[in-house]
Amino acid sequence: VIIIGEKINASRPGVKEIIENRDIQGLLALAREQAEAGATYIDVNVGIGTGTKEEEIKSMEWAVETIQNGIETNLCIDSADPKVLKAGIDTRQGRASIINSTKAEEKTLEKVVPLASQAKAPIIALAMDEAGIPKDVQGRLNACRKIVSSCEKHGVSLENVYFDPLVIPVSADAGQGIVTLNTIAGIKEEFPLAKTVVGLSNISYGLPARSMLNAAFLHMAIYAGLDAAIMDPADEGLASAVKAGRALIGKDRHFRRYTKAFRKNN
Amino acid sequence: VIIIGEKINASRPGVKEIIENRDIQGLLALAREQAEAGATYIDVNVGIGTGTKEEEIKSMEWAVETIQNGIETNLCIDSADPKVLKAGIDTRQGRASIINSTKAEEKTLEKVVPLASQAKAPIIALAMDEAGIPKDVQGRLNACRKIVSSCEKHGVSLENVYFDPLVIPVSADAGQGIVTLNTIAGIKEEFPLAKTVVGLSNISYGLPARSMLNAAFLHMAIYAGLDAAIMDPADEGLASAVKAGRALIGKDRHFRRYTKAFRKNN
Repeated sequence: VIIIGEKINASRPGVKEIIENRDIQGLLALAREQAEAGATYIDVNVGIGTGTKEEEIKSMEWAVETIQNGIETNLCIDSADPKVLKAGIDTRQGRASIINSTKAEEKTLEKVVPLASQAKAPIIALAMDEAGIPKDVQGRLNACRKIVSSCEKHGVSLENVYFDPLVIPVSADAGQGIVTLNTIAGIKEEFPLAKTVVGLSNISYGLPARSMLNAAFLHMAIYAGLDAAIMDPADEGLASAVKAGRALIGKDRHFRRYTKAFRKNN
Repeated sequence: VIIIGEKINASRPGVKEIIENRDIQGLLALAREQAEAGATYIDVNVGIGTGTKEEEIKSMEWAVETIQNGIETNLCIDSADPKVLKAGIDTRQGRASIINSTKAEEKTLEKVVPLASQAKAPIIALAMDEAGIPKDVQGRLNACRKIVSSCEKHGVSLENVYFDPLVIPVSADAGQGIVTLNTIAGIKEEFPLAKTVVGLSNISYGLPARSMLNAAFLHMAIYAGLDAAIMDPADEGLASAVKAGRALIGKDRHFRRYTKAFRKNN
């Protein structure tokens, strides 16, 4: 499981101000903190919600330029707008990046999938379409199938696709955890080359003991076939959950990384 | 997931002395403590390893009699010896009990499965045979198939069978966690009526941060289809893992039990 650091997101407290004020040190601190805590990619979402598309493009160019001038790290270029994604990817000039995201909607696919093809970059693809998030596993798999067709058309290998089965708070619908987990398993069965990713923290929205519940869901998702998680890499409970989960499914030879990480604790 | 309390086991420190000294208060304290912590069944294993079979039979009769005179609880009668199992079950006189255990060996099956049939009691069946524990999923499923044949022959419904896929320490072989998990999933797929159980703590033997690793494995096992765990019900990390896991797979309507258990913590 690889970790995509979630903290540079304009919807989070303090981040909007960093973007609006072009606060270089503030932005770099968020990037460094996550890279040091073990994030393989750092998500960059600069959509402050009130600005124009041109402002979001300028903010994305500034943020990407600032981070890559300051530290060497992989970035996850995050926007619902294909033009903002293109601006971020162009600024990267070939450095390792994930495009985040497309959904199974013709209009979006026709813009974002060719971008992934040209940049030879992995792409996050949401298991939803223009009608919203399907309630059941088959509906979400249908969205994935539509995305697969577009990827085949545009020459994007499924190895470069991270399907996001989407996480809905279980406080709203207690049955949605198992739908997400079974969608992960279904994707891995139907498209063994494809990868899977979730944004974890949504699962526990509105409930107590969130970090513990997030970790429990992460363990289950790893067994179901999860390849990546968008999360706070500095959340110790979650970081431990990644290490334990990875080792238990046989991805940590002789439990060496696990033992190294935890031997001080016992 | 139901919890089977593991503490009354002669191989654990202090328990051998309780049994040898016929320490009624000591035995009842162990039983009460586990029942109060949420165990649905309390395991009773009185095999001290050095005594005769007759002594083990007498110890089992004493322990069962003592517990059921002191508190009302369900017991899990635990011995490798069919005669000790019979002594325990006879002492129960029809009170709710699980027989723990048989393996897929003709000699044992022919004695233990008829006992389960007569007592109409659930039985724990180990996915191993006279040659030991098979290294892979198919080998363990083959052992389960042999047990299923015996149950059909003796009129034991699969609803009353708890298959134990067996847990081997991942410190000895890092790939064994996934073998156990996939065996659980395989059992639930091939025998949907049957139930599954594991003895948890073995998984983390010889590794640091054991409680955390046990909880991670338990989450994965619950998603794979686990119905029961033999564990320490007073281990708060594990008890929390059971509550979170049960809720995430949709077995806790509106997360009510989860919220009640954790709302003080946040």
